[in-house]
Amino acid sequence: MLSSSCDILSWFSKRDLAVRIGVFCSGGDAPGMNACVRSVVRSATAAGHEVVGINRGYQGLIDQNFFLNAKQQPIMGARDVSNIIQRGGTILRSARCQRFMTDEGVRTAAENLRQHKIDALVPIGGNGTFRGSAELVKHWDGQVVGCPGTIDNDLIGTDFTIGFSTAVETAVDAIDKLRDTAESHERLFLVEVMGRHSGYLALYTALAAGAEIACVPETPTEIPGIVAHLSQLQQTGKKSIIVVVAEGDEEGGALMLAEKLQRAECTFATRTVILGHVQRGGSPSPDDRMLATRLGDFAVKSIGAGATGVMAGEVNSQCVLTPFEKTFTEHKQLPQALIDLLECMSN
Amino acid sequence: MLSSSCDILSWFSKRDLAVRIGVFCSGGDAPGMNACVRSVVRSATAAGHEVVGINRGYQGLIDQNFFLNAKQQPIMGARDVSNIIQRGGTILRSARCQRFMTDEGVRTAAENLRQHKIDALVPIGGNGTFRGSAELVKHWDGQVVGCPGTIDNDLIGTDFTIGFSTAVETAVDAIDKLRDTAESHERLFLVEVMGRHSGYLALYTALAAGAEIACVPETPTEIPGIVAHLSQLQQTGKKSIIVVVAEGDEEGGALMLAEKLQRAECTFATRTVILGHVQRGGSPSPDDRMLATRLGDFAVKSIGAGATGVMAGEVNSQCVLTPFEKTFTEHKQLPQALIDLLECMSN
Amino acid sequence: MLSSSCDILSWFSKRDLAVRIGVFCSGGDAPGMNACVRSVVRSATAAGHEVVGINRGYQGLIDQNFFLNAKQQPIMGARDVSNIIQRGGTILRSARCQRFMTDEGVRTAAENLRQHKIDALVPIGGNGTFRGSAELVKHWDGQVVGCPGTIDNDLIGTDFTIGFSTAVETAVDAIDKLRDTAESHERLFLVEVMGRHSGYLALYTALAAGAEIACVPETPTEIPGIVAHLSQLQQTGKKSIIVVVAEGDEEGGALMLAEKLQRAECTFATRTVILGHVQRGGSPSPDDRMLATRLGDFAVKSIGAGATGVMAGEVNSQCVLTPFEKTFTEHKQLPQALIDLLECMSN
Amino acid sequence: MLSSSCDILSWFSKRDLAVRIGVFCSGGDAPGMNACVRSVVRSATAAGHEVVGINRGYQGLIDQNFFLNAKQQPIMGARDVSNIIQRGGTILRSARCQRFMTDEGVRTAAENLRQHKIDALVPIGGNGTFRGSAELVKHWDGQVVGCPGTIDNDLIGTDFTIGFSTAVETAVDAIDKLRDTAESHERLFLVEVMGRHSGYLALYTALAAGAEIACVPETPTEIPGIVAHLSQLQQTGKKSIIVVVAEGDEEGGALMLAEKLQRAECTFATRTVILGHVQRGGSPSPDDRMLATRLGDFAVKSIGAGATGVMAGEVNSQCVLTPFEKTFTEHKQLPQALIDLLECMSN
Repeated sequence: MLSSSCDILSWFSKRDLAVRIGVFCSGGDAPGMNACVRSVVRSATAAGHEVVGINRGYQGLIDQNFFLNAKQQPIMGARDVSNIIQRGGTILRSARCQRFMTDEGVRTAAENLRQHKIDALVPIGGNGTFRGSAELVKHWDGQVVGCPGTIDNDLIGTDFTIGFSTAVETAVDAIDKLRDTAESHERLFLVEVMGRHSGYLALYTALAAGAEIACVPETPTEIPGIVAHLSQLQQTGKKSIIVVVAEGDEEGGALMLAEKLQRAECTFATRTVILGHVQRGGSPSPDDRMLATRLGDFAVKSIGAGATGVMAGEVNSQCVLTPFEKTFTEHKQLPQALIDLLECMSN
Repeated sequence: MLSSSCDILSWFSKRDLAVRIGVFCSGGDAPGMNACVRSVVRSATAAGHEVVGINRGYQGLIDQNFFLNAKQQPIMGARDVSNIIQRGGTILRSARCQRFMTDEGVRTAAENLRQHKIDALVPIGGNGTFRGSAELVKHWDGQVVGCPGTIDNDLIGTDFTIGFSTAVETAVDAIDKLRDTAESHERLFLVEVMGRHSGYLALYTALAAGAEIACVPETPTEIPGIVAHLSQLQQTGKKSIIVVVAEGDEEGGALMLAEKLQRAECTFATRTVILGHVQRGGSPSPDDRMLATRLGDFAVKSIGAGATGVMAGEVNSQCVLTPFEKTFTEHKQLPQALIDLLECMSN
Repeated sequence: MLSSSCDILSWFSKRDLAVRIGVFCSGGDAPGMNACVRSVVRSATAAGHEVVGINRGYQGLIDQNFFLNAKQQPIMGARDVSNIIQRGGTILRSARCQRFMTDEGVRTAAENLRQHKIDALVPIGGNGTFRGSAELVKHWDGQVVGCPGTIDNDLIGTDFTIGFSTAVETAVDAIDKLRDTAESHERLFLVEVMGRHSGYLALYTALAAGAEIACVPETPTEIPGIVAHLSQLQQTGKKSIIVVVAEGDEEGGALMLAEKLQRAECTFATRTVILGHVQRGGSPSPDDRMLATRLGDFAVKSIGAGATGVMAGEVNSQCVLTPFEKTFTEHKQLPQALIDLLECMSN
Repeated sequence: MLSSSCDILSWFSKRDLAVRIGVFCSGGDAPGMNACVRSVVRSATAAGHEVVGINRGYQGLIDQNFFLNAKQQPIMGARDVSNIIQRGGTILRSARCQRFMTDEGVRTAAENLRQHKIDALVPIGGNGTFRGSAELVKHWDGQVVGCPGTIDNDLIGTDFTIGFSTAVETAVDAIDKLRDTAESHERLFLVEVMGRHSGYLALYTALAAGAEIACVPETPTEIPGIVAHLSQLQQTGKKSIIVVVAEGDEEGGALMLAEKLQRAECTFATRTVILGHVQRGGSPSPDDRMLATRLGDFAVKSIGAGATGVMAGEVNSQCVLTPFEKTFTEHKQLPQALIDLLECMSN
């Protein structure tokens, strides 16, 4: 991780040239991607750059599939991103692209970028996206500065990723509803959230929803210990239990855990809910909109300052840049303080 | 069966006596049950009656498990139901009760009602609840006037049941989110909603969410026809598809349908979401609060007028009473006009 | 005036001709207008008609300001209304038009309709809109079938108008939030809602929000009576009070009422909130989407059946047509049953 | 500001004694106060302490008005705070207390604390609350560690205050709705948000809502410049404008600004909305719940470590303590980076 925004921008000799910037979304979509696209366009336009929107991620780069404005030109202006900050999904659509994983695919994309005179790229996505970008910069001499768009918050180099805050909100909102019925019927609910190999989404959801337990891949999930703890809570008068399960937990997802709990003679009546893709959608939370706005702007400013091969992120309220390689080679740790906090609240 | 509230109340000779009314929630919980309890208490109190809250449905009746107010008395006053109209679940908790399905259970409940000098009951629940009530009135000479509380809207004698509107809202809200990601990735989502043997929840959700197809138990679900229709939509430029599946559909739930679609060579990339118990919770919608308020009040007024063995409902904006038997022996039809409407919108 | 949709459609000899239908939104915007536009387009397309979208209401009719599709043609196809059912506002924009209130304005509009070979119109709006339509049919021989789009629910000929349900939801949601702070601080909140000359929005909001009092233009607002009632509630332990005030109340809006309550020595600490234009926006509720979908479809089918000079509405779950004149000459009554119900709950 | 939580706790010699901790809410209520109370109770209980809930802030301290559990004892146990993390307002109620501003009031409070053998206090509130606490510690030898509960985010010593995130969310949600109607009618909306002397709430709301302008007390609000900027935006095709106004702006609130804009011949049709107390209520956002949970726990642990006369806060994800005096004598600066960001987006 490099340093604060001001520092970074002074590291580079200001190029101060108007450039042509391509922007696209790639991988699983995340709430706030539109806010980020808007920010890239507005920030670039304000600095005299031109923006080209690329539809459907790397696939669109290969297919030369560009966003067309009302005049059918392949340019995104300030008005083309009006009134999208609050919308889920992405107006540029997203995709996972097999062909870009081949050498031929990357070369075709690079060739297309040269042909359309694109000087710099802002990919918005997760670690798969940045792995692709790391390849691209080997075959293309333009600049690439990415923005972290994924609900998983599994990227080194930024405290939070764009979409994480909204996904937590969606999961917490669902659990608030489940708590109503859990209380009414005195039940245990196992709620599976997304997050792939990371327990971030599960841990934050559990803390904010007031769940009793979070099962995450970063810590051992011990069934007998859980059953004993639940039994103890029941004796103190606890009527309902929420257990948040990360889809990547080493003991399996919610369905498998339900089975294991039953086999271990858990005394609560148990129900299972898998939140699924609902977590990817919805109007982005204010936090996601702000983060997306800030990082999109910072990515453009970093391009202006000459940066490349890096992801824009926010750490301790400061904008920073991190080499792509770090984002897909290192695992982001769960804060121990929050793991302890959840345990402390569960009595 | 049907008549306006005014008519009904004049059928009976006004008893005008202060009575002691028990209220409880039974079966699956539904948003608006609290609003209904509040209404029963407030309406009864205003008329000079006394209300006893019974916890956990028929089980609580058997166990003599009563709601205690701040002074630890088994009485619910107007202040005890302050600030609950907006809460999901039910402060009286709900339960399904095996023992009440036996003769012994019913007799014990009846004995307890006599012992606690309860003159009338307002059970809030679905057809299982009213089947129980129909048994109870055979062994007890108090009055029973029920209120329809279930998210399934599967009860004859009322246009809508308490909880249905909120469940539709929750499902539609989830699909709005899924549509974001479906559009971004150009996918088909199969979304399974509750409803047991009824397709009401699925049909309303599909219409309000702008879904392309609803698979409901009331109409044949023909896989080849669906695949052909989807293929046609794809040719007109349709990028994403939402199919709402009633859990009771004769072709199976969403997972089974996903398999069948794939086997029938549906060309859309398909994902499945099962909304599950989230649909039972949440702050009740304004409609559910109003319906609950109206029916709770009407149940109390009907008791005052001497009614028994009936469920309070709202048909064409009028309050009506329907014998319990009808609620669990007849199947409520889906409106053909709405089935046609969905088809007409799907182009 | 009233009859079921089937009946109406058989009144007319089916014309079965493909026609060209113009659709526009006029007057104050209301959530669900987009859902209605979508329904008109989809229903018309399915029947072989062609649809022209007119921007900015009557103003756009005068200015020949048409919606252009992606190919820059003045035609709205099924794909042009994809993914708008859930959006607030209206993609056709709305406006109030002074010039259409003159003879010259109406004649210009009629001339433009003839020039663009538009056979029929579906205006979506309130009583001002239909007053305009009533004028238009005098100067133009095309058909006009309107849809009721206004948050005020002040139109004869339909149980509810498109937008009312969402406006109630927004107001109730705001009051749920105010109740939190009212309870915490033991205060009285005067909450002013919209509705122009009608108390519908205020009455429904009050009932669903569990407010203690609604001040509406249809019933006398007696300050001393209110103060006495509040004092009585305070003595029973009531900690917070919500009074919903219709903007059209004969005693004035919330600010004026606050002053009058203070002068009458109301003992609660009082705060005032004017909800304002927030009530006009937001994603439409499922009810508004369904109503809009149903009425848009019915308007198109009524045009197919030869109807003109009428507004489509829903009464007792049946689609009906009502002459424009009725919609702006008669005042829709508040249901006395609901006025009584609110009073009964306020103890 | 002192340092990170780990450091702080090692500064003090662990007392490791079970103590009796009082907790209360004071000043304007804020969403998340309940989550904070829950956290204090759960964390204290887990550490073997006992908690006394004090109703209505300093007033309750003077009146000896304590929270009573189901057994009518003045003790808050783990079960007494079940299911409140998601609730707005505060179950302990809040109040502003005139008498505590007198010497006599403070002495009475101190006397009551001694009498009830309370060893430590956790006040939850804003700078007025901590001003009171600073007085109290002069007359009482117990420990006081506060938590920052205010929607204004105007406290030194914490990146964010409990309630701020939810207030932003409420304001952004309202503006999303206003944007619908602003777009439909091509209008300018002036939206006044709370924040007292601080522009934090206005600036964050403006950024997240995609507003064009924020008028805040920390920067000069120049009417002619605003009018010129708006005129320029209109020429680029901008159809609707949102201006967020901090209630404490030096040019006045939204109503006064509307007047000044009109006098300066702003060409947009202008409407005004004052969000008001709605911003204080509502279910707390996940962020507020987490912050409240973390700080409540940290306050208890800090008491265990011997701290007093300080407010718990979170800075750069670390828990820190700040002397009360700083919280009410220094003004928290708005981040210039965010002021610049808003300007950059407004094109």
